[in-house]
Amino acid sequence: MKIAKILHDSQTRWCEIVNGGEIRLFPEKFNLAEYRRFTSQGSSLSLDRTTIAPPTVSAPKIICIGKNYADHAAEMGGEVPELPIVFSKFPTSLAGPYADIVLPEISQQVDYEAELVVVIGKAGKHIPIYQASQHILGYMCGNDVSARDWQKGRPGGQWLVGKSFDTFAPVGPWITTADEVSNPGDLVVQLRLNDRTMQQASTRLLIYPIPELISYLSKFFTLDVGDLIFTGTPAGVGAGRNPPVFLQAGDIVEVEISGLGSLRNRCVAENVD
Amino acid sequence: MKIAKILHDSQTRWCEIVNGGEIRLFPEKFNLAEYRRFTSQGSSLSLDRTTIAPPTVSAPKIICIGKNYADHAAEMGGEVPELPIVFSKFPTSLAGPYADIVLPEISQQVDYEAELVVVIGKAGKHIPIYQASQHILGYMCGNDVSARDWQKGRPGGQWLVGKSFDTFAPVGPWITTADEVSNPGDLVVQLRLNDRTMQQASTRLLIYPIPELISYLSKFFTLDVGDLIFTGTPAGVGAGRNPPVFLQAGDIVEVEISGLGSLRNRCVAENVD
Repeated sequence: MKIAKILHDSQTRWCEIVNGGEIRLFPEKFNLAEYRRFTSQGSSLSLDRTTIAPPTVSAPKIICIGKNYADHAAEMGGEVPELPIVFSKFPTSLAGPYADIVLPEISQQVDYEAELVVVIGKAGKHIPIYQASQHILGYMCGNDVSARDWQKGRPGGQWLVGKSFDTFAPVGPWITTADEVSNPGDLVVQLRLNDRTMQQASTRLLIYPIPELISYLSKFFTLDVGDLIFTGTPAGVGAGRNPPVFLQAGDIVEVEISGLGSLRNRCVAENVD
Repeated sequence: MKIAKILHDSQTRWCEIVNGGEIRLFPEKFNLAEYRRFTSQGSSLSLDRTTIAPPTVSAPKIICIGKNYADHAAEMGGEVPELPIVFSKFPTSLAGPYADIVLPEISQQVDYEAELVVVIGKAGKHIPIYQASQHILGYMCGNDVSARDWQKGRPGGQWLVGKSFDTFAPVGPWITTADEVSNPGDLVVQLRLNDRTMQQASTRLLIYPIPELISYLSKFFTLDVGDLIFTGTPAGVGAGRNPPVFLQAGDIVEVEISGLGSLRNRCVAENVD
């Protein structure tokens, strides 16, 4: 099942996407944890990119894994980490799959990072690796947009602010439920910048695969329904290139993952009054 | 006004604390942003510590400032930062003012940090310093509990996991609205461990005062109603002592701030099945 969220009559509503673009609304009382209990209703709506919202609960934890592909760890000048590097983005950074990415006035080094995003479907703490899959609702595409000049080289070394500007977490276009993803451990993650392929790798290359990540994270904090795990980005980010490539107003960034659809976000300059 | 949240008939309900311990419930449709519009109703309830929940919206951003008192920066071996150090705790770490702090099995270095917490009352982005006070709903006590062995010395240097174990963010006991706090820039923040005073300092010593913090943070992300800013801790934390002092099962940790009440949390060992 493909579960999306759309703006409908000035409200966001959960819906199902069928036949490659038809929308069927779920009842208003829909909740993500029990999606199997709800039946979507036929409607005359068809997929309109301007109405698609991020398919998330209202304020999920956005848990991100750093340097989880060996080739990306190398291009960022780091070694393969002995333990997963965990950081976060604030929920205010979420953006729809076709929304604009706003380039902040105070950054000159905004970069892209294509990632497979896991959506948690069942709450848990201290989840054993062999039970991790029971806690996965589904998967979607994500872009861990990062202002490198705020992520690094700042006092304290914390990445949070460089990762959490508003619109820095486009996700979607919908959640593909786990039963429709036969092998999440072998999906091709791709990023195109103005139609040029910049990143392309299989999730086979994840240093810490998804079940290990879920188990590891749940040692620290309870995972809740709707929480998102950004699983890391492969090589090819702008900061790792020579010369570096950073996002400019007018750029079109697309993230595509096999079977999960694609994001298409335009970059615009921030307009501070 | 003192705004608290209690567990009442298996629901959490917003309420007002009057006469030093009487509870008056707000109507169910209460919302924090517009608290002035609602009138609390008399009830026969009196303050029962077992029913007091964290006085927060469901999943606020928990924004934390590192090394914001010069004496604490020194004891942690760092210099005074040139810019605020910003990190976060996940909302799943929130705990009530009298709840237990669970000491994780995987940490041997759990520490306390008494802090003044600011509650945002009006959303905003790019807030000028001179308008910052209009965005403050009120203040409360917080304890930025920190597993030092997970905060530091780990690959990537991110503090998040060491700061975000479940129960690592006791807050409350209630929000004291800004109109009742005549000078938030001169409140005494105190922490007692088993009745011994371990931290005591005035918020006068904040390197980055509250209006500067609000303005700075809002350059990166939208501040929302209910978001929390942990403003930093003064000297006296356990890790800065010789020999270091870490929390043990049975310890009682109290955070008190002049005029804002106090937290009293007991430490218990985690029980992993």
